[in-house]
Amino acid sequence: MNGAQSLIRTLVDAGVDVCFGNPGTSEMHFVAALDTVPEMRGILGLFEGAVTGAADGYARIADKPAATLLHLGPGLANGLANLHNARRANTPVVNVIGDHATYHKKYDAPLESDIEALTGTLNGWARRSASTAEVGADAAAAVAAAMDPPGRVASLILPADVSWGEGGEACEPVPPRTAPSVSESAIKSVAEVLRTGEPAVLLIGGRACREAGLRAAARIGAATGAKVLVETFPARIERGAGLPMVERLGYLAEQVAYQLDGVKHVIVAGTRPPVSFFAYPGKAGDLVPEGAQVHTLAEVDQDMVAALADLADLVAPGTEPVVQEAGRPALPTGDLTPQNWVDVIGALLPEGAIISDEANTSGLLLPAATAGAPRHDVLTLTGGAIGQGIPVATGAAIAAPDRPVINLESDGSALYTMSALWTQARENLNVTTVLLNNRAYAILRMELQRVGAEGSGPKAAELLDLSTPDMDFVKIAEGLGVPATRATTAEELADQFRTALAEPGPHLIDAMIPPLL
Amino acid sequence: MNGAQSLIRTLVDAGVDVCFGNPGTSEMHFVAALDTVPEMRGILGLFEGAVTGAADGYARIADKPAATLLHLGPGLANGLANLHNARRANTPVVNVIGDHATYHKKYDAPLESDIEALTGTLNGWARRSASTAEVGADAAAAVAAAMDPPGRVASLILPADVSWGEGGEACEPVPPRTAPSVSESAIKSVAEVLRTGEPAVLLIGGRACREAGLRAAARIGAATGAKVLVETFPARIERGAGLPMVERLGYLAEQVAYQLDGVKHVIVAGTRPPVSFFAYPGKAGDLVPEGAQVHTLAEVDQDMVAALADLADLVAPGTEPVVQEAGRPALPTGDLTPQNWVDVIGALLPEGAIISDEANTSGLLLPAATAGAPRHDVLTLTGGAIGQGIPVATGAAIAAPDRPVINLESDGSALYTMSALWTQARENLNVTTVLLNNRAYAILRMELQRVGAEGSGPKAAELLDLSTPDMDFVKIAEGLGVPATRATTAEELADQFRTALAEPGPHLIDAMIPPLL
Repeated sequence: MNGAQSLIRTLVDAGVDVCFGNPGTSEMHFVAALDTVPEMRGILGLFEGAVTGAADGYARIADKPAATLLHLGPGLANGLANLHNARRANTPVVNVIGDHATYHKKYDAPLESDIEALTGTLNGWARRSASTAEVGADAAAAVAAAMDPPGRVASLILPADVSWGEGGEACEPVPPRTAPSVSESAIKSVAEVLRTGEPAVLLIGGRACREAGLRAAARIGAATGAKVLVETFPARIERGAGLPMVERLGYLAEQVAYQLDGVKHVIVAGTRPPVSFFAYPGKAGDLVPEGAQVHTLAEVDQDMVAALADLADLVAPGTEPVVQEAGRPALPTGDLTPQNWVDVIGALLPEGAIISDEANTSGLLLPAATAGAPRHDVLTLTGGAIGQGIPVATGAAIAAPDRPVINLESDGSALYTMSALWTQARENLNVTTVLLNNRAYAILRMELQRVGAEGSGPKAAELLDLSTPDMDFVKIAEGLGVPATRATTAEELADQFRTALAEPGPHLIDAMIPPLL
Repeated sequence: MNGAQSLIRTLVDAGVDVCFGNPGTSEMHFVAALDTVPEMRGILGLFEGAVTGAADGYARIADKPAATLLHLGPGLANGLANLHNARRANTPVVNVIGDHATYHKKYDAPLESDIEALTGTLNGWARRSASTAEVGADAAAAVAAAMDPPGRVASLILPADVSWGEGGEACEPVPPRTAPSVSESAIKSVAEVLRTGEPAVLLIGGRACREAGLRAAARIGAATGAKVLVETFPARIERGAGLPMVERLGYLAEQVAYQLDGVKHVIVAGTRPPVSFFAYPGKAGDLVPEGAQVHTLAEVDQDMVAALADLADLVAPGTEPVVQEAGRPALPTGDLTPQNWVDVIGALLPEGAIISDEANTSGLLLPAATAGAPRHDVLTLTGGAIGQGIPVATGAAIAAPDRPVINLESDGSALYTMSALWTQARENLNVTTVLLNNRAYAILRMELQRVGAEGSGPKAAELLDLSTPDMDFVKIAEGLGVPATRATTAEELADQFRTALAEPGPHLIDAMIPPLL
């Protein structure tokens, strides 16, 4: 077999059987090899940001990596922003980055660039495959590295001649490490802190945002009075009726100050102490209240769920977690507003939904409206690089074909990776995109005030305006093969949302909502 | 004044008075400062690939840089592919990349990443502005670096607190170097080669692809029998009636072998000896024929136009260049084909047009069809990173508001940076996009054969297919605010092309053309 065939066979044997790709000439042997390994599913994205974001969304739901297929440095560069989000989500991803043949690099042909410099920014695992005989082993190592706790982006650079050369050998999977346990003494030490009864916050992240972690954290909170919070942008959080309702740490420093007011201890499990998303003149970047102590129960790469369970058994042996009762908001009526659209979602969210949430400012009131809805997962914008929502929804739908995927998407962010809608149409994915069209970079209007930028006038305002001309997302979606409708009232949104959920395949609703601020 | 104000004032004083941007929170003081420097024009792009491509197109026409405004590492990453093309075009660009405040970086907030690693891949000039007092001088240095022959991408990283701090000082422009002259002995040495009468090719690039260089090269060719060729992907080439018609070096190695068959001397001026765009199994990457000698008349950063003129005076003192006679193809009739659509363009191309050419396989016959058309410029895909065409057309139209801009665009490439159409609508730019919709990555179908990828079947074919579902570029363009029509016959294309040219503002024609191969 050739190198490409051994690579794909090795990936499949290690459980990686989906490859999102946008290939070029240097990847043609990989593309041809797909036909020789029937278990590998190749899925075309029309832009690499769609490809990498789909791989992120897939792994957040499947708990195993997808592969990506990217075309040299520029292809990787196009996918880098969503890989940045994947890095912040600790998502396992296996990039296969095609490159010129080894002997061709010296010519500095037009597409030549420094691929290693780009992979280096992902702080993950990266290797250039040196020979056809080794590429199978490289692939096995890449999967193991991607799965190494807490998960990371692994990038395998595949020179064209390594790919097309004969003498490839498929390789056995390399078992990934399991997450290291937290020491008993560390758990006991946090238990002592909680037993002081001083005001404390337990801030959880990573895997702790799933049911087992949430239940353990809620037990601890109920027994000790500690306030339990989830990190601001969890990769995946399980929510809804029957699960503990745990508030997320705020995006704005002002919110966080309110949430942490008076706290003497900040205990972190699977996340880091809170910092401000951006710096603002005269305001602190470290959001731990002055005088409060930080205690680390579990690092992000440790088994934070077991640590929380052990801690709960210490400090809350007989305590059951308080769970959210079932309950939905009433269906609202009248023109859509930032306040009422979330109630439509809360009222109609189907059982087992996956929400890809890039609603940004429009979504501020969403968590309350969906708290008592049937159980669902929410995937958030982990790295702040916009353009995540549509691709992540696409990948999640590939991972969970039987679950409804809801993409709550902002107009400004949607334009970054709009073409992922086409992949949804091509693969007939059950994704309903609610496009929150407020005709502005609304978050930046707010931020322009918050950073205290004085003297701003019409030129600044123009750079944050998306209404000249207005965008018609119905037409854009239809142009990409996705049926679409426009909602201007809550009733229309409810009708269209119901229809979209009932019909197979993707839909988009262009929801005309005024800016929150 | 604050840092941002001193930066913008310095840019304007150095002649940089257009800024394409997509800002975020860390750039809000720069955005606000636009209102304090009236000479600076801020132009919003909805994605950084549109922003950087527009800056490239602007400078190729304006012969001076535009600024870009990018949001931290992910914003730069999104713009990197078109900056790669700008790098290969030797286009002057001044990037302003906002970053977290200096004191905030230690928190590793979600958008933190290694910006320097990304700027490093551009092989240009990069600096992180260290203090508000210095940012003016940094900006002046950035403009001079961008303009340093042959032109490059200069990247200034602007921490938020350096931007918002008080004590900024606007700085005088730093005069850029002029291009170094080629030595008299180098010119004489090439003259000797030409006088041998042995078969020779003169391959020109860079500034030599404008009128003065073309005329000098054509004189040399006429007098010595040397064959004159232009590099495969020139940043900007002047063409049309009254100018020497100089063929471009082919994209395919097979074409180049034909063009260079029997040549004993390859003389390069302002470009490099020919290499294959990609490696192919068993084929050479170095396209200089075996036994031929390479002679460098002028390096890419030298004054290649003066060198060609001096060489012409030595070897062709009394010779006038052969120039292209005026002449257009007849308007074709019937269904659109890869063969006839180029004749529509050739028949109707207006005087002084700028062609942003990303037609790829569909454009193979374009040069012959437009050779005798009125004078025009062609901007080509210099770095091979697709998604260049729409942004470059946008920037070119900003640089030359009185010239018609024609964007010949492929379906596959268009999807990368489609949102630049919205900027064309917003700025009411005279850009006519002819979208060559062959419903495939047609070039890759060809390449799949050329690389000899055996065993490819339906899965491979599916990854190169753009027809399931079909994309409706009329709807996509209209959704982005650009009037659009569909042409399936040559008559329709001619009618719609005429109308688009006659009406102000942007237009898109979705031209349904079967694949060439």
